[in-house]
Amino acid sequence: MNDLTKMNTEELTREKTELRAGYEAFREKNLALDMTRGKPCPEQLDLSLEMLNCVNANIFKAENGTDCRNYGGLDDIVEAKELFAKMLEVDPAELVIGGNSSLNIMYDTFSRAMLFGVCDSDTAWGRLPAVKFICPTPGYDRHFSLCEKFNIEMIAVPMTGSGPDMDMVESLVKEDDAIKGIWCVPKYSNPTGETYSDETVKRLARMETKAGDFRVFWDNAYTVHHLTDEPDILLNMLSACKEAGNPNRVLIFGSTSKVTFAGAGVGMVAGSIENIDWVKKNVFFQTIGPDKLNHLRHVKFLKNNDGISDLMKKHAEIIRPKFDVVQDVLEKELQGAGIAEWTRPRGGYFVSLDTLDGCAARVISMAGNVGVKLTPAGSTFPCKQDLKDTNIRIAPTFPPTADVQSAMEVVVLCIKLVSVEKLLNQA
Amino acid sequence: MNDLTKMNTEELTREKTELRAGYEAFREKNLALDMTRGKPCPEQLDLSLEMLNCVNANIFKAENGTDCRNYGGLDDIVEAKELFAKMLEVDPAELVIGGNSSLNIMYDTFSRAMLFGVCDSDTAWGRLPAVKFICPTPGYDRHFSLCEKFNIEMIAVPMTGSGPDMDMVESLVKEDDAIKGIWCVPKYSNPTGETYSDETVKRLARMETKAGDFRVFWDNAYTVHHLTDEPDILLNMLSACKEAGNPNRVLIFGSTSKVTFAGAGVGMVAGSIENIDWVKKNVFFQTIGPDKLNHLRHVKFLKNNDGISDLMKKHAEIIRPKFDVVQDVLEKELQGAGIAEWTRPRGGYFVSLDTLDGCAARVISMAGNVGVKLTPAGSTFPCKQDLKDTNIRIAPTFPPTADVQSAMEVVVLCIKLVSVEKLLNQA
Repeated sequence: MNDLTKMNTEELTREKTELRAGYEAFREKNLALDMTRGKPCPEQLDLSLEMLNCVNANIFKAENGTDCRNYGGLDDIVEAKELFAKMLEVDPAELVIGGNSSLNIMYDTFSRAMLFGVCDSDTAWGRLPAVKFICPTPGYDRHFSLCEKFNIEMIAVPMTGSGPDMDMVESLVKEDDAIKGIWCVPKYSNPTGETYSDETVKRLARMETKAGDFRVFWDNAYTVHHLTDEPDILLNMLSACKEAGNPNRVLIFGSTSKVTFAGAGVGMVAGSIENIDWVKKNVFFQTIGPDKLNHLRHVKFLKNNDGISDLMKKHAEIIRPKFDVVQDVLEKELQGAGIAEWTRPRGGYFVSLDTLDGCAARVISMAGNVGVKLTPAGSTFPCKQDLKDTNIRIAPTFPPTADVQSAMEVVVLCIKLVSVEKLLNQA
Repeated sequence: MNDLTKMNTEELTREKTELRAGYEAFREKNLALDMTRGKPCPEQLDLSLEMLNCVNANIFKAENGTDCRNYGGLDDIVEAKELFAKMLEVDPAELVIGGNSSLNIMYDTFSRAMLFGVCDSDTAWGRLPAVKFICPTPGYDRHFSLCEKFNIEMIAVPMTGSGPDMDMVESLVKEDDAIKGIWCVPKYSNPTGETYSDETVKRLARMETKAGDFRVFWDNAYTVHHLTDEPDILLNMLSACKEAGNPNRVLIFGSTSKVTFAGAGVGMVAGSIENIDWVKKNVFFQTIGPDKLNHLRHVKFLKNNDGISDLMKKHAEIIRPKFDVVQDVLEKELQGAGIAEWTRPRGGYFVSLDTLDGCAARVISMAGNVGVKLTPAGSTFPCKQDLKDTNIRIAPTFPPTADVQSAMEVVVLCIKLVSVEKLLNQA
């Protein structure tokens, strides 16, 4: 469409009238569409239904004979450790597989760090006058909620398209020993979809940190979640850390929530042997052992890396059309309009869209008023404060494609309407 | 047998020679028996095999239509809340169902209390100069490990046969505001098998505590785990607390680890609405939701309280003979010998045996040396310190009945031998 920013008042006013009419027309449709969360759709969950039959009255033992129904340790299912170690590109000894939630493992990691410190801490983080974390933005709201919960001060650093602004990161961590870590979703990032460049990974691994117990929280949630046939390649962060002489720097989190079942997958954490010893020593106090039957289900169903890869291709076939619809509507309605920029992710679960300054919250509110629920304004920023008020996270996987289409039509109309009103106010 | 404590040196020496020969005979048998942990045996786990088929490619939705495969909240499976609320004798709104481990829920409760305080704390427990917990002894080693982990000072109070010595408990908690709680396994207690009397429950509920945020950690792990047809009745502690005007005092922990699968059951926590709100507000930060498929499996399999009750009767049929063997051997070999006392539990997973002072560790060590592994000496006491060195926890459920018989023969022989040596040393 034409560039709205170059229109005169008369033209803008005409646009506004038309857009208002369009908006009222949507109101009459009584839509009820939800694009708030990165949830798999039922058809995606159907892909793993066979997993429910993989453990049954006859199949409940691991290859080494471990009865997965009974109490038992973390390392009992050797084949599960091999499978997921390969997925995360680490050694089986560098991995702990837990319950159904990697978020829970991240919470536990913070909780332990606050109460007891990490493996090379002099002091429990909770006993320090301040703890700060670097939060690349826009980012994942649940990461930021965790920091809020633990009263960790968040320092926002912008994403660049190849990871966080590393000049900023390096200068921050070099100067301030209260900065204990950084959140990273390094592949198909939430929400920007970008994959960290080799250079970003290497700089994170080797950068000088004032805190001796600095940790990179590497939430590799979307490591196998490609939307194209040419997957992004992420440099192995643990190897990079070892090469840089900082083997304990990274804690890698992984999950099958968006591989098998979002509610009944398995979460995991990987890292150096020293980090993993630290995890295990703490987990001993927490539980007699994880749900090994669900680990076994995963191994029997996924089998190996090829099994994961084949399954993820089927996921992509289901959700790619939804991402295509998002791009189609955005391109058709906003390309050249001068009022929005958005990402074209090659994997993951989100499209990140930036409006003109000061427009996002109103767009989200207006869309909500005609039945299109979007992720709340500010969610992708620490303390839910998007200072420029520009970012909208679009989560197209859950609704049917036709609903994504309808929702996106509402979104672009609201963006145009709010932008026109802003431009008129400035005129 | 004859009372060893009344024998003269000559008689004791003769006994010792015979016992030594018996011990060497056991050594030649190369036994490898494990009675260390309260683990269900495979036959018990087989009772719930059908549960593995209760959720399958066609059955994965709750009654209200919730897709249990996907992300979702804590209260989505109404029928699961109803089932387990009845098991714990609380209202569904007073319950949160979690993952596969009630120990993990207890750990989380401590962790939250230390970091943030409980719902009526003025100060996070971790910021106080000292936190103390009352630990009835003998008790559950994992409870004591938790206290150790969080640097909580443990105050041992003896069990009496109807719960902890309440005179001691009352006088302690009235005087010291650093005492923030007490561990209780109120029914078929671990390891003594006793059920708290009505009077004990009422006194715990109404006693005056100097700490305003005192908590009774009510680990009702064996609430449905009867060995007889006439179950012990435990007074409802939440009701008692409400009646006493202390509704927030108790946190009730429950589990199906020894109902369905020890490794793949469900853990839960119950309490006043205010306590449950506190749990939920914290759990929000920890996870997107629990493994609802496993909740659904439990509901479909157990169905209702009658279903639980029927299943527990089948458990009793399997493990009662093992408890009987323990009693038979103890009675035959030690009744009237004056060197040991033991419990005759009507439910739960353990027999608690007390030797003469200073004998337990050596008995456990000697049994281990001929292939019978028992729970390590001191395990049932805080910091693993059984000051009188008398307590042995016998866990007969896991091994086959014949192995329990062999193991118990070794145990009683070792008790006699160590006792005779002690008596000879005193003579």
